Amino acid sequence: MDRRTALQIAAGAGAVAAVGGIAAAVTKGRPVIAMLAYPGMFALDLVAPFAVFSSMASHDIRIVWKEKGVVPASGIGVEANTTLSECPDEVELLFVPGGSAGTVAMMEDREILAFLSSRAVKARFVTSVCTGSLILASAGLLRGKKATSHWLVRDRLAQLGAIPTQQRVVVDGNVITGAGVTAGSDFALTVASILQGEKIAKAVQLSIEYDPDPPFDAGSPAKAGPEITRFVEGVYAGLTGAFDGAISRRRKDLSL
Amino acid sequence: MDRRTALQIAAGAGAVAAVGGIAAAVTKGRPVIAMLAYPGMFALDLVAPFAVFSSMASHDIRIVWKEKGVVPASGIGVEANTTLSECPDEVELLFVPGGSAGTVAMMEDREILAFLSSRAVKARFVTSVCTGSLILASAGLLRGKKATSHWLVRDRLAQLGAIPTQQRVVVDGNVITGAGVTAGSDFALTVASILQGEKIAKAVQLSIEYDPDPPFDAGSPAKAGPEITRFVEGVYAGLTGAFDGAISRRRKDLSL
Repeated sequence: MDRRTALQIAAGAGAVAAVGGIAAAVTKGRPVIAMLAYPGMFALDLVAPFAVFSSMASHDIRIVWKEKGVVPASGIGVEANTTLSECPDEVELLFVPGGSAGTVAMMEDREILAFLSSRAVKARFVTSVCTGSLILASAGLLRGKKATSHWLVRDRLAQLGAIPTQQRVVVDGNVITGAGVTAGSDFALTVASILQGEKIAKAVQLSIEYDPDPPFDAGSPAKAGPEITRFVEGVYAGLTGAFDGAISRRRKDLSL
Repeated sequence: MDRRTALQIAAGAGAVAAVGGIAAAVTKGRPVIAMLAYPGMFALDLVAPFAVFSSMASHDIRIVWKEKGVVPASGIGVEANTTLSECPDEVELLFVPGGSAGTVAMMEDREILAFLSSRAVKARFVTSVCTGSLILASAGLLRGKKATSHWLVRDRLAQLGAIPTQQRVVVDGNVITGAGVTAGSDFALTVASILQGEKIAKAVQLSIEYDPDPPFDAGSPAKAGPEITRFVEGVYAGLTGAFDGAISRRRKDLSL
């Protein structure tokens, strides 16, 4: 698709997006973005990239889970509109969000790992935000790839064959990963520029007014300092232990 | 609630949040945050603040609409868990997200305007992100108040009696408003620091790794430049016209 076509589509679909729910009706025939949803995912991991992808107005975006309907995600329900078997074999972009205990479960869910492997073979891009990269790695899809994850568990990617990389967004060939939760916006704008060009990516950034100005500068362990970092590590100690258990079991299956 | 109690709750509830859907079960008796959801809202306007509010693990968060169940929001469904009548009379914080055509409809929806007015009377804070401020203003809740909105329509707040203010987050007394879409993260961290103190706000910022690093610097009209700004304005010309129509009709009802 050349830039002019993309612009026209975006311009036309802006009006469509403006009426909300009917956007899906006009996406037939467009390249597919498949976004996995699952119980216990962190909703923002998925919804922030969705905001960017849907604003491109260029793709047929599927929210995929075992069944259609509400997927309970970190205290708020998000609707899946496509089952695993309904998801097209060929997707342009495969996306996996992170989360907490639900993410640990997905790392060992044979049906989900098989689904991801089958779509990743033909996907132009295989992507994740936050601890979603631990699911991709558990499916064996990040071997030898540079990747990132939530800072709490990023280094653990090495145990599943990936190369942990401390960046907000990591692009290694067709694998694109974002850091924790809110990195989804930076991740998705990077993806938007790759799929639709810089002008569309910037237009999307302006339309979602992404001109960040956090009231504090505490978004990384180095910036938050040791007291707050230890506090957050303490809150999530049980979770990181659960990740370690799943990683250990997956290493055996992956012969790592 | 003193800081120690807040920390203990946050620490205890971190583990609860880690198992996703059951978090709601332990929120009884906590102060209420009521987040309006409606068809055609922009999902990220609600989900970004929800991520921060739920990570505080200190409040009973209700997603409120006329009926429970899936609310279609800009191409993705988000679940409402509380009806208007079920929403407690006294909420600590009332929140309204923005959107596009659905937002225009809410500006003239008598049932919704009455709901917002009734809860605003007793609410400790009345808040919005993006064009949600046009709904609050349509309910007569921003008269004489400094407020912000999406850059496309921010100045129009004046026609509904508010004082348009070009800031990412505007605090005027008990009214707190955020700018377009992604300003919801900056808005919610500001709210978190007011409700729970700076330490909890920073811990939440670190837990959602909010250390923004957009690949482009195009998040405001000045930064995006005239070509991209005109393009986005063109995409949304129909929408801004629809807002103007609703504003004009609301002005009569509000005797402005």
